[in-house]
Amino acid sequence: MGDRVLVPWDLDRSDGLGDLRVEVYDGTGEPPGDLSDVVFYVAPYGRAGALRPVARMPRLRGLQLLTAGYEHALEVLPEGAALYNGRGLHDASTAEHALALVLAAQRDLPRWTADQRRHTWAPHYTRSLAGSRVLIVGYGSIGAAIEQRLVPFEAEVVRLARRPRPETGVHGISDLHRLLPDADVVVIVVPHTPDTEKMFGAREFALLRDDALVVNVGRGPVLDTEALLAEKGRVRAFLDVTDPEPLPADHPLWDAPGVHITPHVAGGSATFYPRARRFVEEQIRRWAAGEPLANEVRAGAGQG
Amino acid sequence: MGDRVLVPWDLDRSDGLGDLRVEVYDGTGEPPGDLSDVVFYVAPYGRAGALRPVARMPRLRGLQLLTAGYEHALEVLPEGAALYNGRGLHDASTAEHALALVLAAQRDLPRWTADQRRHTWAPHYTRSLAGSRVLIVGYGSIGAAIEQRLVPFEAEVVRLARRPRPETGVHGISDLHRLLPDADVVVIVVPHTPDTEKMFGAREFALLRDDALVVNVGRGPVLDTEALLAEKGRVRAFLDVTDPEPLPADHPLWDAPGVHITPHVAGGSATFYPRARRFVEEQIRRWAAGEPLANEVRAGAGQG
Ligand SMILES: NC(=O)c1ccc[n+]([C@@H]2O[C@H](COP(=O)([O-])OP(=O)(O)OC[C@H]3O[C@@H](n4cnc5c(N)ncnc54)[C@H](OP(=O)(O)O)[C@@H]3O)[C@@H](O)[C@H]2O)c1
Ligand SMILES: NC(=O)c1ccc[n+]([C@@H]2O[C@H](COP(=O)([O-])OP(=O)(O)OC[C@H]3O[C@@H](n4cnc5c(N)ncnc54)[C@H](OP(=O)(O)O)[C@@H]3O)[C@@H](O)[C@H]2O)c1
Repeated sequence: MGDRVLVPWDLDRSDGLGDLRVEVYDGTGEPPGDLSDVVFYVAPYGRAGALRPVARMPRLRGLQLLTAGYEHALEVLPEGAALYNGRGLHDASTAEHALALVLAAQRDLPRWTADQRRHTWAPHYTRSLAGSRVLIVGYGSIGAAIEQRLVPFEAEVVRLARRPRPETGVHGISDLHRLLPDADVVVIVVPHTPDTEKMFGAREFALLRDDALVVNVGRGPVLDTEALLAEKGRVRAFLDVTDPEPLPADHPLWDAPGVHITPHVAGGSATFYPRARRFVEEQIRRWAAGEPLANEVRAGAGQG
Repeated sequence: MGDRVLVPWDLDRSDGLGDLRVEVYDGTGEPPGDLSDVVFYVAPYGRAGALRPVARMPRLRGLQLLTAGYEHALEVLPEGAALYNGRGLHDASTAEHALALVLAAQRDLPRWTADQRRHTWAPHYTRSLAGSRVLIVGYGSIGAAIEQRLVPFEAEVVRLARRPRPETGVHGISDLHRLLPDADVVVIVVPHTPDTEKMFGAREFALLRDDALVVNVGRGPVLDTEALLAEKGRVRAFLDVTDPEPLPADHPLWDAPGVHITPHVAGGSATFYPRARRFVEEQIRRWAAGEPLANEVRAGAGQG
């Protein structure tokens, strides 16, 4: 009766795991039976109740998330258990979606979709990404991946994070208001924290030029929905995350002029899975071998 | 009474042009009066009748196009006049639009637009560009610009042109059928010539895997519209150019499953103008100075 590990999918290789028993729980329903022998749990990605079973795992010593955000998991984590997050796993997918939104906006794709529905061929000159100044609010792991993809488009990138890092040209948050009036595009990719809540509100919108583009692939509550609605289309907003989320059918944001919505799908595209599988595979190998794991965000009492 | 030059917009600087008289003709209506003193003509971009006035320019010695294609101009060119094309001016704009279409397709943007119209929040995992194999059919000036922009997305690029260039990893057209079954995405960016007409037809579609994506930013007649319609959505097609063009309101392509249309807008975005202005400015300076011009596609009898 060895220790048990719960993972969201079958592992590709299960050799070298000693007497660890690996079982699959994909987040549908509750994992069955007694969970008292579960020592390591990889919470399924994108499942609302994925952390609920933790309450039934008294011997849990390691919790692996597949998201970058982890604040919500601290509350349920048992004493002495280590917490690992999914930092990096979503970078390519989320950065790719951010670029999809920026390009769709600059090249008027929603307009052409509407014209197609009406069988209308009515070309006009569009904006371009080339020559635009793009302010990345949250120059972290994903922000840097967004920058990499922007560079060959001949866009000018301006970097902003919490603290200034002058040696690498990163502005601190205190420069935000000074930088907004010169931005053609603002990409928001900060986590949701007390500091970032409604960080982008009436004051920030007011500093943007007419027709500027705001793309939010961070978290919905970072952007003040009421303030965006009050802009009445003066600026454009392409949002992968909203506040509230999911957006109720009767919410005015759906029909707000200049607002385009994708339903929080930036992180979870086809490219995420192969990465997540390789990562989980390697984390479990390390766990079994007693080696330090990657992406520790809270230390635990150890594997043994 | 010096020689006259017709340009589509005011030049930024007109010093150093000797006794050349520069006048603006933007392609609206006909240029007024006597055109017998026009020696150099920059045909306005995107105007159907832009070459008509050439018939009234008996002394024309240089014709500058702002398009890459120039076959149509050879017919109207007076004896002894040189022809210059706009190769390179549209690269950034066209490559950017190609990426916008590829990303919109892989990340399901038309679906999210439709869901927004119905106030529906229904996320699903999408395809990604990362990890996809992209075959560029027409690895020329624009094809290379498309490749540059694909690389940071972690896509695998396969290059194809008319003639193989093994030293730079470019396949020749004879490899097309062998390469199609392994492509996730095919980007077509060849000119319209007798050789390329209907180059992409029933045989080529049949070689594509289910759900593969075809993006055409080259010319409409390169792709066989009937063959695409016959696929009935088995493959996806995002087209900036169509055959016929403009697409009549009653054409079945508008409603064909898996087909998304933009109305030939890849080349003409905001980034084109600054480039074209700088280019025209420099061409006219060279003309006035008796220096060789860039982008000569047919030699003339000289400037003097
Ligand atoms: N839409 C989606 O599907 C999706 C997918 C994945 C992630 N996300 C979101 O994207 C966020 C970023 O992910 P990441 O992996 O890039 O995280 P990260 O590497 O930790 O980067 C976060 C960045 O935000 C900055 N930041 C934090 N608080 C700030 C504040 N108060 N003011 C200004 N900047 C602040 C940080 O600044 P410092 O560098 O100075 O600390 C850092 O540059 C995640 O937390 C998640 O909410 C969304
Ligand atoms: N949608 C728009 O708004 C827009 C805007 C600009 C341009 N375009 C179109 O894009 C085309 C390409 O422009 P470009 O500046 O990249 O031209 P380019 O530099 O001349 O490149 C054309 C490429 O097509 C290849 N090619 C020609 N005939 C071929 C054939 N029979 N089989 C296979 N490959 C063939 C050439 O091969 P080799 O290298 O072996 O000769 C070359 O690699 C233009 O001609 C125009 O039709 C569209």
